[in-house]
Amino acid sequence: MDNWLPTLTTATPTEGFELAIKLSRMAIKSTQPDAAVRDRLRPDYAEDADSLIAVSQVVATNFATIAAANDHWRGSR
Amino acid sequence: MDNWLPTLTTATPTEGFELAIKLSRMAIKSTQPDAAVRDRLRPDYAEDADSLIAVSQVVATNFATIAAANDHWRGSR
Amino acid sequence: MDNWLPTLTTATPTEGFELAIKLSRMAIKSTQPDAAVRDRLRPDYAEDADSLIAVSQVVATNFATIAAANDHWRGSR
Amino acid sequence: MDNWLPTLTTATPTEGFELAIKLSRMAIKSTQPDAAVRDRLRPDYAEDADSLIAVSQVVATNFATIAAANDHWRGSR
Amino acid sequence: MDNWLPTLTTATPTEGFELAIKLSRMAIKSTQPDAAVRDRLRPDYAEDADSLIAVSQVVATNFATIAAANDHWRGSR
Amino acid sequence: MDNWLPTLTTATPTEGFELAIKLSRMAIKSTQPDAAVRDRLRPDYAEDADSLIAVSQVVATNFATIAAANDHWRGSR
Repeated sequence: MDNWLPTLTTATPTEGFELAIKLSRMAIKSTQPDAAVRDRLRPDYAEDADSLIAVSQVVATNFATIAAANDHWRGSR
Repeated sequence: MDNWLPTLTTATPTEGFELAIKLSRMAIKSTQPDAAVRDRLRPDYAEDADSLIAVSQVVATNFATIAAANDHWRGSR
Repeated sequence: MDNWLPTLTTATPTEGFELAIKLSRMAIKSTQPDAAVRDRLRPDYAEDADSLIAVSQVVATNFATIAAANDHWRGSR
Repeated sequence: MDNWLPTLTTATPTEGFELAIKLSRMAIKSTQPDAAVRDRLRPDYAEDADSLIAVSQVVATNFATIAAANDHWRGSR
Repeated sequence: MDNWLPTLTTATPTEGFELAIKLSRMAIKSTQPDAAVRDRLRPDYAEDADSLIAVSQVVATNFATIAAANDHWRGSR
Repeated sequence: MDNWLPTLTTATPTEGFELAIKLSRMAIKSTQPDAAVRDRLRPDYAEDADSLIAVSQVVATNFATIAAANDHWRGSR
């Protein structure tokens, strides 16, 4: 695998949140590498309230890590 | 995406809690960008006890991050 | 919304635990503002073992945040 | 409610783990105060693998908090 | 209960991971003390993908605590 | 069990993420040591959206631990 995650540092919280979403997707990609299968599964979660909430939970967990890595962007406001 | 999250700093814990709710919703919006679909799903979770508890879990996770970013608002009381 | 959460500081761990429960409920209230609906849902979770465990998980997550905010009440014993 | 949680400090990790279990139960008790209902629900989770795993998750979350409060009992061994 | 958890300190991350698994099991044992029932439930989770993932989540949570207690074994490599 | 986890230190966040995936799998392996059973279960989660999200949650939890162990690779960028 290429070095797709060279750093956890981002310029803004917004970019940190985007990175948290990316991490969530990369874990799924690692478990199910077949893009065709992932595409087929998409409606199963994108149109299901509980699945969307579960995705939101994973993003929240990853965002905590990225926020810590950026000292919570305390200099930004 | 615009810079919707310029900072994690809030004036009070109450505002921090509001921001935690916003983060939870933005992760869902990112996975399901179609507002019509999200509106259609709303009764699935807003009238389901387990879904509401799951939402509450996501908010709790995001609130932990925001509280840390604000040094737990230790100066407030 | 009024400033219902002016501080995370509490005098004792017991009061901190009570606050953790309150945070868990406020997130649900925010998602389902209709008190009548929330009352109708109550038996769905208050008489269901898995729902009660899930509530307990949310409280545990919020209690971690409040305990950190109070430096774990290290002066109390 | 009486001051049932005067401190998070315990003498040993073993006692801290016991306290984590107590916290998990107190959150359930707070949501379902009726002891008769809780007793009736007991077989629903005590004889269900997924429920037991979920209880274990709550205990793990509370144990993290208590361990932090005790500086992970670094002096013990 | 005997003092089964005298310390969170382990010599290596590998041993810390083993301890995380032990903590996960002890919480279940505390909720369901009857070994015969636990044995009967074993196939319910050991042959179910979602249950195994849930166990893995509990272990991850406990491992975070143990890793923190050992300062992440920073001296080891 | 051999010393399969000698350190939590990795050179890059990418390698840390790989290690988080490994930890997630090792917990499952510990609960279900039979490789034939694990292989048989694979389609149950690799082709199920909710299971994949749950795996992603476990990886996120383990990644938080590994990121902390590496001081969030703050020197990298």
